[in-house]
Amino acid sequence: MGVGMSTPSFFEGPEKKLELVVTPEFGSLRGLGDPTWRRIIRAAGAQVLTTLQNEACDAYLLSESSLFVYDDWFVMITCGQTTLVDAFEEFLRHVPADSVAFMVYERKNEHYPEHQPTTFYDDARRLQSMVPGRAVRFGDEHGHYIQMFHTVRPFVPETTDPTLEVLMHAIDRDVARRFIGGPEGCGAMASALGVDSLFPGFTTSEHVFEPAGYSLNALNGPEYYTIHVTPESFGSYVSFETNHDFRGKLTELVSSIVELFQPRAFDVLTFLPGETAKFSAKGYLLGDHVVDELGGYHVSYFQYFVPPDGPRRPSQLSL
Amino acid sequence: MGVGMSTPSFFEGPEKKLELVVTPEFGSLRGLGDPTWRRIIRAAGAQVLTTLQNEACDAYLLSESSLFVYDDWFVMITCGQTTLVDAFEEFLRHVPADSVAFMVYERKNEHYPEHQPTTFYDDARRLQSMVPGRAVRFGDEHGHYIQMFHTVRPFVPETTDPTLEVLMHAIDRDVARRFIGGPEGCGAMASALGVDSLFPGFTTSEHVFEPAGYSLNALNGPEYYTIHVTPESFGSYVSFETNHDFRGKLTELVSSIVELFQPRAFDVLTFLPGETAKFSAKGYLLGDHVVDELGGYHVSYFQYFVPPDGPRRPSQLSL
Repeated sequence: MGVGMSTPSFFEGPEKKLELVVTPEFGSLRGLGDPTWRRIIRAAGAQVLTTLQNEACDAYLLSESSLFVYDDWFVMITCGQTTLVDAFEEFLRHVPADSVAFMVYERKNEHYPEHQPTTFYDDARRLQSMVPGRAVRFGDEHGHYIQMFHTVRPFVPETTDPTLEVLMHAIDRDVARRFIGGPEGCGAMASALGVDSLFPGFTTSEHVFEPAGYSLNALNGPEYYTIHVTPESFGSYVSFETNHDFRGKLTELVSSIVELFQPRAFDVLTFLPGETAKFSAKGYLLGDHVVDELGGYHVSYFQYFVPPDGPRRPSQLSL
Repeated sequence: MGVGMSTPSFFEGPEKKLELVVTPEFGSLRGLGDPTWRRIIRAAGAQVLTTLQNEACDAYLLSESSLFVYDDWFVMITCGQTTLVDAFEEFLRHVPADSVAFMVYERKNEHYPEHQPTTFYDDARRLQSMVPGRAVRFGDEHGHYIQMFHTVRPFVPETTDPTLEVLMHAIDRDVARRFIGGPEGCGAMASALGVDSLFPGFTTSEHVFEPAGYSLNALNGPEYYTIHVTPESFGSYVSFETNHDFRGKLTELVSSIVELFQPRAFDVLTFLPGETAKFSAKGYLLGDHVVDELGGYHVSYFQYFVPPDGPRRPSQLSL
């Protein structure tokens, strides 16, 4: 991702995420209309780059990540210094809080949290004042972690509603270099990367950022996937997310994605209704594994890293 | 450590550290006098609790960690929201920058960096304007790391000048509980812990913080060690540091210390003139290993953690 990359001299890749399901009594979220969703996006401090639509979903590619709006739910992912809780506040100007059947707000530990306008605790307390909920941390406060705030109303997710996130840190330098300095083969990154062959039949929209960075949204019926790449060496990072049904093939799917970017470390987060995700990674060591149930979903967090095969040199920092 | 623990509702255990050697031409650092050192301490935002002196060293136990002053060098360690670079600026009002033979400033990645008054980059840029140097990071920006700024003037350390730091995260809950709620056997924690038997012959000064926390300074001739404990569950943390000669027994020494606190993860940082430290830990996995040479010291960073033997539950966060 690349907007505003030149000043300050870093860009925060790790994202905030808001996923929300409305009650059956509520009308259509898509029916709120494009101008309302653009207001919600602007409230977070992001802008719309392009949109992609099909019969099930309106997919917005943003200056900082993505928004997917379905009739009865939406997921909004924003990186950089965006304020996703402001977007939720704007959302509640259009949708009554009572119509929120389930909501989860996630925040990955940032590389430069001191440059964020708010902390997770600030965010969670504000959300708590809007919808009652609970806050948890997957992982340890001194290492990798994801913090979440979620509603605690009784909720039964649809059995066809899995979510997979793969969050990759310190990706291979040669791969990263392909995302720096503008488009390699303009608009054909998914193909060049080999992502499209993992997910045949999807329609994609892509954006190559200047001076660096890459975003992709993809739709296939009710399925989406999205990729965001921050390639720079101050903290290279790639996120992948999908609701494609990964049951029975999670290990192969994640391995294929991880192989494309060859990160030094990665996190896998899954939401599955009614069953616990099974996963193992080859060539990586398991650093942490945390499970919980929330809103009827089994949530699993796995943290993997490359074991050191000898001492490394430290990173030189530019002042 | 515990000063100011009730508001805000966390205390930052991980420390900043400044170690500095003066040129032989400079007089005695101890000769600067107690009032000057207290000014330096106050500049960091810390206070003196007690002092311990012997023929070689003046040891200050601080409201936020410790200061050890020798004739030709000093080490100052401060936790919480202290501003150690301000202390260095005050130091330079009493000692000319040309008399700085070697200086290294370290900053461990914090649990709550967003509550720090400055970032490491802010600090390093200010130090750079006072003494020329170089900045490096041991470890990855998305996990455990220590950042350092150090002078690059030619410097040959004394061969008898090793430093060992053991930084322990998420310590055993039963051990942590002994440091919460005031003194257990007042002033005898080192003995109760069993630390004193690892280091016989040392004189100690201790402080038990209300409502929680513990600090210890110890001297034996020119040798010091120091321990600081932040026991609370928002981010329990223990640091141990010594210049005791650990060569040939690093593994046993660190294992003995780690065994006392049983952390989920720990970092070992060593400075050794002329040779590289050898270390391995039983019952922990090596997460990272970084080596460098700076100022004539071989610096080694090891990061270890407990491998997960099954999924854990997430941490509940209070809002």
